[in-house]
Amino acid sequence: MITIDFDKRGSAGLCEFLVDSLKTQILTNRLIAGEKLPSKRTLASHLGVSVITVQNAYNELIATGYIYSIEKKGFFVTEIMPVQSFATSDSHEATKKAGHAHALSNTKPEPKFFTDFRSNSTLSEKFPFNVWAKISRQVLNRADDALLERQDVFGVWELREAIAKYLLEFRNMQVRPEQILIAAGTESLYSMLVQFLGRTLRYALENPGYKKVASVFKLEGARVTALPIDSEGMNPELLKRAGADVVHLSPSHHFPTGIVTPIRRRNQLLNWASEKPHRYIIEDDYDSEFRFNGKPLQTLQSGDKFGRVIYINTFSKTLAPSFRISYMVLPANLVEPFRKKFEFASCQVSAFEQFTLAQFISQGYYSKHIIRMKNYYRTLRNNLIQAFTQSKFKDMATIREEEAGLHFLLTLKADEHPGLKKRTNENRSGLGNRIQNGATLNAEILDARLRREGIRLPLLRDYFYETTKHSETTFVVNYSGIKKEHIVQTVKRMEKAILGG
Amino acid sequence: MITIDFDKRGSAGLCEFLVDSLKTQILTNRLIAGEKLPSKRTLASHLGVSVITVQNAYNELIATGYIYSIEKKGFFVTEIMPVQSFATSDSHEATKKAGHAHALSNTKPEPKFFTDFRSNSTLSEKFPFNVWAKISRQVLNRADDALLERQDVFGVWELREAIAKYLLEFRNMQVRPEQILIAAGTESLYSMLVQFLGRTLRYALENPGYKKVASVFKLEGARVTALPIDSEGMNPELLKRAGADVVHLSPSHHFPTGIVTPIRRRNQLLNWASEKPHRYIIEDDYDSEFRFNGKPLQTLQSGDKFGRVIYINTFSKTLAPSFRISYMVLPANLVEPFRKKFEFASCQVSAFEQFTLAQFISQGYYSKHIIRMKNYYRTLRNNLIQAFTQSKFKDMATIREEEAGLHFLLTLKADEHPGLKKRTNENRSGLGNRIQNGATLNAEILDARLRREGIRLPLLRDYFYETTKHSETTFVVNYSGIKKEHIVQTVKRMEKAILGG
Repeated sequence: MITIDFDKRGSAGLCEFLVDSLKTQILTNRLIAGEKLPSKRTLASHLGVSVITVQNAYNELIATGYIYSIEKKGFFVTEIMPVQSFATSDSHEATKKAGHAHALSNTKPEPKFFTDFRSNSTLSEKFPFNVWAKISRQVLNRADDALLERQDVFGVWELREAIAKYLLEFRNMQVRPEQILIAAGTESLYSMLVQFLGRTLRYALENPGYKKVASVFKLEGARVTALPIDSEGMNPELLKRAGADVVHLSPSHHFPTGIVTPIRRRNQLLNWASEKPHRYIIEDDYDSEFRFNGKPLQTLQSGDKFGRVIYINTFSKTLAPSFRISYMVLPANLVEPFRKKFEFASCQVSAFEQFTLAQFISQGYYSKHIIRMKNYYRTLRNNLIQAFTQSKFKDMATIREEEAGLHFLLTLKADEHPGLKKRTNENRSGLGNRIQNGATLNAEILDARLRREGIRLPLLRDYFYETTKHSETTFVVNYSGIKKEHIVQTVKRMEKAILGG
Repeated sequence: MITIDFDKRGSAGLCEFLVDSLKTQILTNRLIAGEKLPSKRTLASHLGVSVITVQNAYNELIATGYIYSIEKKGFFVTEIMPVQSFATSDSHEATKKAGHAHALSNTKPEPKFFTDFRSNSTLSEKFPFNVWAKISRQVLNRADDALLERQDVFGVWELREAIAKYLLEFRNMQVRPEQILIAAGTESLYSMLVQFLGRTLRYALENPGYKKVASVFKLEGARVTALPIDSEGMNPELLKRAGADVVHLSPSHHFPTGIVTPIRRRNQLLNWASEKPHRYIIEDDYDSEFRFNGKPLQTLQSGDKFGRVIYINTFSKTLAPSFRISYMVLPANLVEPFRKKFEFASCQVSAFEQFTLAQFISQGYYSKHIIRMKNYYRTLRNNLIQAFTQSKFKDMATIREEEAGLHFLLTLKADEHPGLKKRTNENRSGLGNRIQNGATLNAEILDARLRREGIRLPLLRDYFYETTKHSETTFVVNYSGIKKEHIVQTVKRMEKAILGG
């Protein structure tokens, strides 16, 4: 029978705590896919809570796709292929806080890390400052009225044309410049989409996933549901059960797991969207430019016959995070309604920069830059992986999803070293000496030890929405901004921090 | 007794129509300030509607400040000093539509006007492209990591420091860079403010006013109330009666009437804000740089002892509309909560442009540019006013609020010329020949005739929120973008369009 320790409930409501606990048990396979759950009445009496509480919890779990009901038979655990397995830890919230801590006064910048695996930064030596300056100069030399005029909310026509051509050439997407809208970062696009589609719709997100999407959706007052992905990405059945209207997806390269949604599943997703008039898929193609093997996959947008896919991409990954230029491709049928709603507004991106980027793309510098960066990142990744395989981690490390994007997953097997052991009475060097009384791996301490070595390295679990606690040591290694010459030293420092060497 | 022609109700609800009609009668002084309104029962029976309908209408009018009730005595008309007097016209909606019309395909830019008095554009010959290009080059030559890094949601520190110094020097405002947040246009700031303060609060706006604010607030799902201003701007009594929590104001130079809120009223507004913990004033100081006589007025922000004024300004007016850089100054106590809420987000403005603008300001080019533009605009305004006073309009034109900002009000007295007569049976040249059967001045036709001459000239009434109809011929002359050498020809064309010469 299911055991729930209500003593750990803290300030959470009974139902909320029950939901969280059951989610954890499902995600950690303590409740197995297909397993029949106790009846509401049985569980209620077992746990000493009211039947209504259990009923509300079950309903919530059905809505979010964790369990399903079969009439006259009962409730069953959904077959979710969890991306990772989980154990419990008490430090999740604390880590989150530490990770987001910010100097109160903001007079000082954040501390610099020797190696920062969290931010997807770009090395300044890799950015073509000279070309950019040259083109800026060309643009400013025009000195014409167009440079100073308020820009249509969709953005500068020249840039939209350049993007349309680029999408045709590199993504095989047939879109008209009219469908393209330029905005100041993907966050702005998410905002506009909620404002346009309506905040009463239910927005589903991939779990784990890119949490900023949820933050923006919530700021916009939308109803947000994070749904667990399986090995093929988002399952449309879960979308249906959760009553989702709009879903944010990264089918070509899920962040951060790297999962690629196969064609059959893609078609199922498109079919899901076509079934009701207000259903839309927001396809976030944030890093498709950096696929190392083979051609980039076809976008959902290309396969969309129903006008239900809104395609989003950004220049933050390919140029630099400081560029606040992203764009979306609206289905043709949404162009006019969108224009009507935002007619009063101006495009948020400076016209100078839009004209400059348009020239940067159409003079061929952009695709050259991507090719150069792809080669550079491939080498960087190879060097980094090689360093791991030659390190003390070699027998305990698994690397996955390294074929695309600017990150991979690094899993350290906990049993391989006392420092990572989940339960230990040891009191020697390494993490072990902080873990007492059978406590599980303490992510906060791990993070602190890494930071002391100048390393910032996020855990996969940081990308999950649950407040449930899990502590598997899988790291998301965002390597785009690290220095090549720091690699060896970085791995050494990681050994010291993690293994206490 | 109040007469309402319910035949003209169209698709509006009974209550809604009653509210609109009463508002019109108050604004046009058909119902005089202090006048006692009929009791609910009397009016209901007189109009043949239910008492509930009248009651709801009265409540709505009380909430929006048009009327007030005194216990046991009844309902009275509020003393609102209307900025303008109003007559009725049937073409308001049509004009609005025409003014906002947009090519469906967006393949072509909007038609260019010989003279456009609507957009506050900047002439390219007046923009220091060379200096900007030089500084851009300087910034790009740094080629350092800071240029490429994701920027804190508050923006680039260097720019915030430059703005703080500028505000001290030119606005005598003592603010710390920590309080300053950079965003992509004032629209983005309005959005963030609703997201931060909450969409359940009631947001009050100046009527007439800058309508984009309402558009953004509504997109954000906030509750919005437009309140009539009097000769001193917004009256805090109306804010109280309307149950407003937040108010958007332009106290130093109201747009478009140019009203300057005097000190006593300012203090009343600050007191209003201080009375409840969730009350805030958004002070929009959009064009204070261009005050032609005397020093700029002290900002509300400077007088704010309670931490209730959020100051907003933009570079769109002083540099060019294509610049999407605006900023706000948060009260010190809101800085940390704001940071907490938007911690996940990045500043929306490109770092290149922020660093460039920072240098443009701190190297002194910005204040030089403003002084140069102020002189240029003063001359432009003088030439334009002179042209009017030497034209056929000379005996019928009144010009007001020309001491500041980049626009003034031009009122043509309708009785002075048959073309503008409100009721006419004439069928000769001029507007008169289109106005038959005693119809009132048709703004749509006026607009069409002006456009045919290549002139875009907005009416003051376009800046009101009411759907009620009024047609006084007061124009808002936004002159910043017109060409000096076009002035004489422009006035000639206006004569032809308006007077049918």
